[in-house]
Amino acid sequence: MNSVHKEQIAARFKAIQRSIVTDLERIDGNIAFQSDPYQRAEGGGGITMTAKNGAVIEKGGVAFSEVFGPASDSLNQQMKAQAESFYATGVSIVLHAENPFVPIIHMNIRYFELSDGQRWFGGGIDLTPIYVDNESAKQFHHDLKELCDRFDLAFYPEFKKGADEYFYIPHRGESRGIGGVFFDQLRADDTHDFEKLFEFTCAVGEHFSSAYEKQVQRFRNSSYNETHIKWRNVRRGRYVEFNLVHDRGTKFGLVSNGRTESILMSMPPLAEWEYQFAVEPGSAEEITQNYLTRTTDWLTV
Amino acid sequence: MNSVHKEQIAARFKAIQRSIVTDLERIDGNIAFQSDPYQRAEGGGGITMTAKNGAVIEKGGVAFSEVFGPASDSLNQQMKAQAESFYATGVSIVLHAENPFVPIIHMNIRYFELSDGQRWFGGGIDLTPIYVDNESAKQFHHDLKELCDRFDLAFYPEFKKGADEYFYIPHRGESRGIGGVFFDQLRADDTHDFEKLFEFTCAVGEHFSSAYEKQVQRFRNSSYNETHIKWRNVRRGRYVEFNLVHDRGTKFGLVSNGRTESILMSMPPLAEWEYQFAVEPGSAEEITQNYLTRTTDWLTV
Repeated sequence: MNSVHKEQIAARFKAIQRSIVTDLERIDGNIAFQSDPYQRAEGGGGITMTAKNGAVIEKGGVAFSEVFGPASDSLNQQMKAQAESFYATGVSIVLHAENPFVPIIHMNIRYFELSDGQRWFGGGIDLTPIYVDNESAKQFHHDLKELCDRFDLAFYPEFKKGADEYFYIPHRGESRGIGGVFFDQLRADDTHDFEKLFEFTCAVGEHFSSAYEKQVQRFRNSSYNETHIKWRNVRRGRYVEFNLVHDRGTKFGLVSNGRTESILMSMPPLAEWEYQFAVEPGSAEEITQNYLTRTTDWLTV
Repeated sequence: MNSVHKEQIAARFKAIQRSIVTDLERIDGNIAFQSDPYQRAEGGGGITMTAKNGAVIEKGGVAFSEVFGPASDSLNQQMKAQAESFYATGVSIVLHAENPFVPIIHMNIRYFELSDGQRWFGGGIDLTPIYVDNESAKQFHHDLKELCDRFDLAFYPEFKKGADEYFYIPHRGESRGIGGVFFDQLRADDTHDFEKLFEFTCAVGEHFSSAYEKQVQRFRNSSYNETHIKWRNVRRGRYVEFNLVHDRGTKFGLVSNGRTESILMSMPPLAEWEYQFAVEPGSAEEITQNYLTRTTDWLTV
């Protein structure tokens, strides 16, 4: 069943990157992404596309990469493998909007294979609202469930739980946002052949633009003041903490001599820290804070 | 030679905290530190003193802690020990000034003992100028050398190297700042008895205020513009990266269920990230950047 080859996967991922960039330029209305191709000394490279100071997006990146090379001992150990080489390709997105009512959004799809024949997909989409809005959170999760259900009814519950577990900041006792779906090491088995998993992974990537567009349309014209900006900057600080302290991709990238600027394109344009920052009782900030310290079934909220 | 006991060490450290806070309130001239005492469920606690929006200091903390409890397996493994319990006390400081010409400063002194009898000191002072100024960097290192030389002529070269190695951000290929001195696991031996090492460690703590005062006096009235603020915020972003990705104390604290707000009092008030941020050729920012990407003998610069 090796009918889909890595070259096809990389080509499709690259097409998803291009298509998302086109969509984002249309959605924002006043932004142009810059393309930054690079080579990796050890093998492969990527194209990092970034933009800033748009009508909606203050700072954002849509990165494609395709890397390969000798499999390290630690990789083999982790995968219980004895492979000579690895290959990985993926698309990663993080967008920070200026308006505190437009959520931070993150998407990633990735494919990995080892020369011993092991191969799998990973990915997900998740949302980090500065202010949680019930209706749009419900919509976001509902759309993800619909997408998952086209492939397997077990996917949404499993991958929603995956996101809740993954996007958690233990040292803060809170979630990064309202989650979404997150899956890793998704391998072909009796239930799902490789082609189906490939199509599912691509469907997640292809869903991204419409998911973000709904958030943008709903909130891009919301008015905001200094209190909202302060809270946005504090929430962005937590985003930084999650990414630098916990995110596996970021940590792995930084210690394995990855391309720092592409890895850290996820950083917000401006973030803030205040000792013992506390939300006002009864405030909109407190409502969001309360959502972040518990797990919510967003389909029935 | 157990004439100095942990209670005396903690008391002296606590006195150093108080004295530094008094000094900082005088140096700044328009700031009051708030005292935040806390208990640690597993044993001990601390007093975190913080301040913000002073005449000079935008955000700063001076923390004392004294913690103890059962020694974990990983601690015993790391120390090649089989101790039942540990005890640790220390003072930590990070100050972020609003004026981009006043450097970020960090100081830490710490004492650690295991129930098997092992005990040692650690600590250091280092400076992170947003704009490196040759003369004041030289002065800063010269004063540290003078302090070290009072105890051992080998200390300054060894601990200066320690700081250069420790305060390095591999994923950026640059130093956090211009270093200073950094020492760890300083144990009594034939050359230095325990009392002498204790006095040296306290001398580092007691040196802090004068070191910072010289920087503040020299730069507090320097005028600055948007370019300087932008660069300050970018440098603060690198400070965040070092602390969250590399700093041992921060990482250990966060994963070992330490008090998050006390650990992250080191975070800047406001930090900024820009994709592929580049300094202008020939600019003051480039001069600083060049210092950060090489090692400098600050005594002879």
